[in-house]
Amino acid sequence: MKIAVMGYGTIGSGVVEVLRINHEKIARRAGEEVEVKYILDLRDFPGDPMEDKIVHDYKIIVEDPEIGIVVETMGGVEPAYTFVKAMLEAGKQVATSNKNLVAAKGAGLIAIAREHGVNFQFEASVGGGIPIIRPLNKCLTADEIEEISGILNGTTNYMLTKMTDEGADFDAVLKDAQEKGYAEKDPTADIKGYDPCRKIAILTSLVCGKQVDFEDIYCEGITEITPTDIQYAKAMGRSVKLLASSRKEGDSYSCMVAPFLLPDSHPLCGVNDVFNGIFVHGNVLGDAMFYGSGAGKLPTASAVVADVVDMVKHQHTNIYIDWKPEKMELIDYKESTNAFFVRTSSKKQDIENAFGAVSYIEAGVAGETAFTTEIMTEKEFEEKSAQIELINRIRLG
Amino acid sequence: MKIAVMGYGTIGSGVVEVLRINHEKIARRAGEEVEVKYILDLRDFPGDPMEDKIVHDYKIIVEDPEIGIVVETMGGVEPAYTFVKAMLEAGKQVATSNKNLVAAKGAGLIAIAREHGVNFQFEASVGGGIPIIRPLNKCLTADEIEEISGILNGTTNYMLTKMTDEGADFDAVLKDAQEKGYAEKDPTADIKGYDPCRKIAILTSLVCGKQVDFEDIYCEGITEITPTDIQYAKAMGRSVKLLASSRKEGDSYSCMVAPFLLPDSHPLCGVNDVFNGIFVHGNVLGDAMFYGSGAGKLPTASAVVADVVDMVKHQHTNIYIDWKPEKMELIDYKESTNAFFVRTSSKKQDIENAFGAVSYIEAGVAGETAFTTEIMTEKEFEEKSAQIELINRIRLG
Repeated sequence: MKIAVMGYGTIGSGVVEVLRINHEKIARRAGEEVEVKYILDLRDFPGDPMEDKIVHDYKIIVEDPEIGIVVETMGGVEPAYTFVKAMLEAGKQVATSNKNLVAAKGAGLIAIAREHGVNFQFEASVGGGIPIIRPLNKCLTADEIEEISGILNGTTNYMLTKMTDEGADFDAVLKDAQEKGYAEKDPTADIKGYDPCRKIAILTSLVCGKQVDFEDIYCEGITEITPTDIQYAKAMGRSVKLLASSRKEGDSYSCMVAPFLLPDSHPLCGVNDVFNGIFVHGNVLGDAMFYGSGAGKLPTASAVVADVVDMVKHQHTNIYIDWKPEKMELIDYKESTNAFFVRTSSKKQDIENAFGAVSYIEAGVAGETAFTTEIMTEKEFEEKSAQIELINRIRLG
Repeated sequence: MKIAVMGYGTIGSGVVEVLRINHEKIARRAGEEVEVKYILDLRDFPGDPMEDKIVHDYKIIVEDPEIGIVVETMGGVEPAYTFVKAMLEAGKQVATSNKNLVAAKGAGLIAIAREHGVNFQFEASVGGGIPIIRPLNKCLTADEIEEISGILNGTTNYMLTKMTDEGADFDAVLKDAQEKGYAEKDPTADIKGYDPCRKIAILTSLVCGKQVDFEDIYCEGITEITPTDIQYAKAMGRSVKLLASSRKEGDSYSCMVAPFLLPDSHPLCGVNDVFNGIFVHGNVLGDAMFYGSGAGKLPTASAVVADVVDMVKHQHTNIYIDWKPEKMELIDYKESTNAFFVRTSSKKQDIENAFGAVSYIEAGVAGETAFTTEIMTEKEFEEKSAQIELINRIRLG
């Protein structure tokens, strides 16, 4: 099997490396040798062992009948979409690690692949090396999945873990994460939650079989989390985690990306540093969790190559993926319900006037009052909290 | 699709229940309705809604061309093996939850299924509802799996959790587990470790592609664990867990079932009560963990029905499973290496004569001395510990 890799960055070069390191094992699993024939990139790589495989025009790959499988590790929606579409239409199978592409164009590309009797797979687009796409598609098929809650972004999980362990503040841990290469120079997609937002849109689409648009999901990052919040979390026996979550409600879903205060007994609470964890609740399965390296060169490449192995074995069979382009209308987040942890400079009398009976939290912080509320809708919370001087609020998980 | 269920016990009736509860969802996933036509059991079930589907002779199922898929939830090797073999030879696909059958006859049944162009699947045989068989077969195919360590028995994990939380002794928690229905009247297979031993044999077979015989695996249960051991574990920041483990060493594997003292930071340490957890280390993936309900009627049935859905979609395709009948010779467990926690009535001088420098552990227990050793082979440990008066020893994870 001759394959092409589009995009020779971190993940693309990881794919080449995994194919080299585990060459024999992969050939045994796939049933034949897997060889990289082309690498598409704008750049040249003088001195790189793969230098002679570099091409700059994707049409060379489209037009080569020897290429059966194409790996897309370029990132971004365009030109990835144009290239991937052309490959599928030319009867080539495609594996991608590109969450932006999958979140925006997944349903359409699955349909195009099906029309042409080939496959479009994207295990690496969510949870890096953690198997989650295929388990949802192939393993949890007897269940109604009622909830998915994931720590789907390693960068912010590293930052929150460090804030918890060291009491450091947001700016300091961001700088540290950038120095370690965990956060990008422009960290917006991570710290604002846009990255996990695309991932939960993909997972929810697979659960409901329809298109969930990430633009419809309420999304809050970790930029407002302070060492004082962490101090309260510890006093409550909880940890702050950035969750991307999706709950089935009637025939629709309630989705959200936001920091949550999880009790220490929750399986996701042990997911620290750059690790990812995905908690799934099925109506007959009960609770399950998938844990592992959610990012990083080799773990992510491992998932891409597993897709390649699967596609070598399914060269003339379409692997059914239940994700249609029809749009799923999500429940307005203002109707979704949570209990809240609240910090305020208002007096207890004002708090109780707004919220009724609350549970106060003591963590030795001067000049403010903290409490937790009953479960209520976001709308109710907004109305009530407008009556007090809010310092911060975090949802309880 | 008409199916038959062989064995109308806990899991078999769970399969019927899951098919009823999630009927629509399953039909959508499978692409057609799935209907139970026969239930094979020795007993009659007067008054049961499925009463009219009960048959007592498996040949009725073998000879009915309408039956495409058979579920085996009888347990035990015979007559399950005879029945399953006959079904496969008659061109019917089989899904089973029966670890005894799979551990003893898996490779052979996979080969028979392949010869007849059908499938033999067994997701529910390990880890109950947790997807692990399919992830190993289909997801982690780009990796050399270097280690699997699993909490694969919910009964003993419940017992150890209760001993840890309540300081209760073995006999008391066994009685409690029996009263709650977690442990059988004859609890031998659980408390002696025979159940997780079969499961790690299955997982190791799938990792290496050859037959691993569970009889070759050194197996120790939890019967020797006392409240004093738990007290020491807490003093060390560790927990006692019954692990079934498998480590790649050169071209072979070192397998063992035994209680281990895991540090509280280990992902498996948060796996409590009747839950199972399976930790996997791949050479490019790094660490991953799968967590969930390892037993129980509906979770296990969920995994069986997921196999059924997969087989409805693969009616004329053999799903490749890499497990050949050729025997894998395991490394003699006496050559496997671990560090040990040791309790002894001997004096420090005698301990140090035998073991050299050790780390002593203080947990306020009178009349004995406890310490941890360096990493050594089981053989070395046996020789050294023969020189002291041993009270108990537990391996360190």
